[in-house]
Amino acid sequence: MITRDECAALDAVDPLAPLREEFILDDATIYLDGNSLGPLTRSARERVATVVDHEWAEGLVSSWNAAGWMATPTRLGDRLAPLIGAHVGEVLVADTLTIGLAKLIGGALALRRDRHVILTDIANFHSDIYIVRAVAHFADRDIVVKTIARDELDAHLDDDVALVMLTHVDFRTGEMLDLAEVTSRVHAVGALMLWDFAHSAGAVPLDVTGANVDFAAGCTYKYLNGGPGSPGFIYVRAAFQGVLENPLPGWLGHARPFDFELEYTPASGMQAFVTSSPSIVALAALDGALDVWKHVTTDDVRAKSLVLSDLFIDLVEARLAGVFGLATPREHVRRGSQVSLRHAHAYGVVQALIEHGVVGDFRDPDIARFGFTPLYLRYVDVYDAVERLVEVVESGAHLSPRFAVRQSVT
Amino acid sequence: MITRDECAALDAVDPLAPLREEFILDDATIYLDGNSLGPLTRSARERVATVVDHEWAEGLVSSWNAAGWMATPTRLGDRLAPLIGAHVGEVLVADTLTIGLAKLIGGALALRRDRHVILTDIANFHSDIYIVRAVAHFADRDIVVKTIARDELDAHLDDDVALVMLTHVDFRTGEMLDLAEVTSRVHAVGALMLWDFAHSAGAVPLDVTGANVDFAAGCTYKYLNGGPGSPGFIYVRAAFQGVLENPLPGWLGHARPFDFELEYTPASGMQAFVTSSPSIVALAALDGALDVWKHVTTDDVRAKSLVLSDLFIDLVEARLAGVFGLATPREHVRRGSQVSLRHAHAYGVVQALIEHGVVGDFRDPDIARFGFTPLYLRYVDVYDAVERLVEVVESGAHLSPRFAVRQSVT
Repeated sequence: MITRDECAALDAVDPLAPLREEFILDDATIYLDGNSLGPLTRSARERVATVVDHEWAEGLVSSWNAAGWMATPTRLGDRLAPLIGAHVGEVLVADTLTIGLAKLIGGALALRRDRHVILTDIANFHSDIYIVRAVAHFADRDIVVKTIARDELDAHLDDDVALVMLTHVDFRTGEMLDLAEVTSRVHAVGALMLWDFAHSAGAVPLDVTGANVDFAAGCTYKYLNGGPGSPGFIYVRAAFQGVLENPLPGWLGHARPFDFELEYTPASGMQAFVTSSPSIVALAALDGALDVWKHVTTDDVRAKSLVLSDLFIDLVEARLAGVFGLATPREHVRRGSQVSLRHAHAYGVVQALIEHGVVGDFRDPDIARFGFTPLYLRYVDVYDAVERLVEVVESGAHLSPRFAVRQSVT
Repeated sequence: MITRDECAALDAVDPLAPLREEFILDDATIYLDGNSLGPLTRSARERVATVVDHEWAEGLVSSWNAAGWMATPTRLGDRLAPLIGAHVGEVLVADTLTIGLAKLIGGALALRRDRHVILTDIANFHSDIYIVRAVAHFADRDIVVKTIARDELDAHLDDDVALVMLTHVDFRTGEMLDLAEVTSRVHAVGALMLWDFAHSAGAVPLDVTGANVDFAAGCTYKYLNGGPGSPGFIYVRAAFQGVLENPLPGWLGHARPFDFELEYTPASGMQAFVTSSPSIVALAALDGALDVWKHVTTDDVRAKSLVLSDLFIDLVEARLAGVFGLATPREHVRRGSQVSLRHAHAYGVVQALIEHGVVGDFRDPDIARFGFTPLYLRYVDVYDAVERLVEVVESGAHLSPRFAVRQSVT
């Protein structure tokens, strides 16, 4: 079995190791929850300070033009585009992930008025299911949202399906779907394909162009480190721009916002999907956080992520044989950037581990979830995390009555 | 006519004068555009730094609970409630003003399914018209949005009207409507009343409770100084909570968000209108900005606002007789906290004034708009602003060919 010294030796030659310096992290904590909230980068902190102390305080209202605030949602979309394999002009950062999904679902329904079915995964993150049902309900026509098991997709795909909405990496298990293969199956029946990249963007290489994806949405506060509640992004393939309508239009999405026209005429490109401006201060944090991608590719990140998560799985199985079930697929092509362990007392395991300085999170009913974020995570962190997990399990700390009643966790 | 010394004497005895110290302002600029973007307060800057450097950087994901992030949208709503005459539990800060309107309009339509008309003001801010039409269109049933002149409201009010949406203070002219009187007329035909408080909140006293207002929305980046793109707020009268449905639901509005239930069950109170969390960094700026209201009431602000705007009107009329038309009602009860001057070269006037250190803004086609924000504006500022306006007009600076083509302004 690998030793801690061998892990330290891997860190010493890791080309990504210097990136940890970009992040503000406390060495006493091993943070395996960057898949829930990414940590602060120095660049994000600086960019927020610049926007607050200079652009806002000194430039005041003139900064909408002089500091480029107006263009921030599309400019950040363009910065983000390479991380998902999109072209410049296909991505926008605005609103929240759920509002972004509402725009895309609403727009897609209008494009397939002759069809009556939306398919989505019953294992989807719940907000996705709530919003797709709500939009379909509000559309007030004969639309059925079918929440299905994703491995039964083929049985439901027919020429009455308007839209398929799936999450690329399962938030509970970390299972990753084949972007191109699934998209192709959906297109084969003439349906539109909408992907949720909440647990993919910044975590795994994505090629929306090669996979012919129609629409996608994601969040920026997990692997993209944009900060708590950082605005979401949406992707609309160039072919659908000028075709897909924004069902929640606003003046900043107008072709001529300062002409104050009574009739709405959408701007060209992704600007049409801006409703009102998201917070410029919030976008500043994301803007800074994206700087780290100047030094690294998603392929680099992916390679290290797989080594880290393999290491975690191997160490857990070696040191704690039979204690946990592995909810995450072992096969690389089917795994995102997290490892989920099943345990009857998973909540207690996560809470006790936090008290031992290792932050993961719990997902109902029995999942202890650990995110592997290669931009700042070291091999020794993985080693030490498993050592502390062993301490927790062997001491029975996870069985403490203090953990009998679950508190809200994110 | 009043002298500059007399203005300085008014400042010396102004009980609101010390509040200017809470703001970070450059004395070289006279900022009459706080009705577009309020300036930075010291408290907002500090609160952003605390959230970024401590709650996010150090607390990481635990801050969702430990630092109270989860409750921020309702907590800030409660802080804002007294400024509009609402009770605790009736206001929420989340999303943007336009998305907030979409939620309220969508919810209201579902409450009046037997009615077929929405009335709104043709002079409304354009985003409001775009979103009400879009929501009605998406609802895909027999709903007509009538954009009318607001003084013809009575002619259109009948028992087929589901909802009336009006802006309390006109963004162009600054005309203010009678909240209670209009709401009462709308209720008389059984319609629901939705107010847009974009130019009212923080500027004039509001009594949504006394006026029996059903729903309202507003923004926080103007007179509330929350920063560029700061999230909007919505008000839902307590009687409609549990009745009005959020048409854009999300997991944070669920009664039990961490049980990850497949069926959406709305939380009680305003929490049901949260979709996803808005940026916590953005909310931090607003949180800090609201501190100034610990020291002042909207009545105090209103009293000074009227004196400032009267002073401005009087000085303009005395020093520049016949040059400008007054678009803003002279009558106090019909005036918000801005003064709008009509001029054929209004764009040039505004641009030349900016070059003379006085920031107002232009609104198509012929309005030079000046906001009077008593929290940080001095009587001498008003005096000096008019002096510089005189310089501009007398020098013909506003006729410069540089201002022949309009640039985007906010």
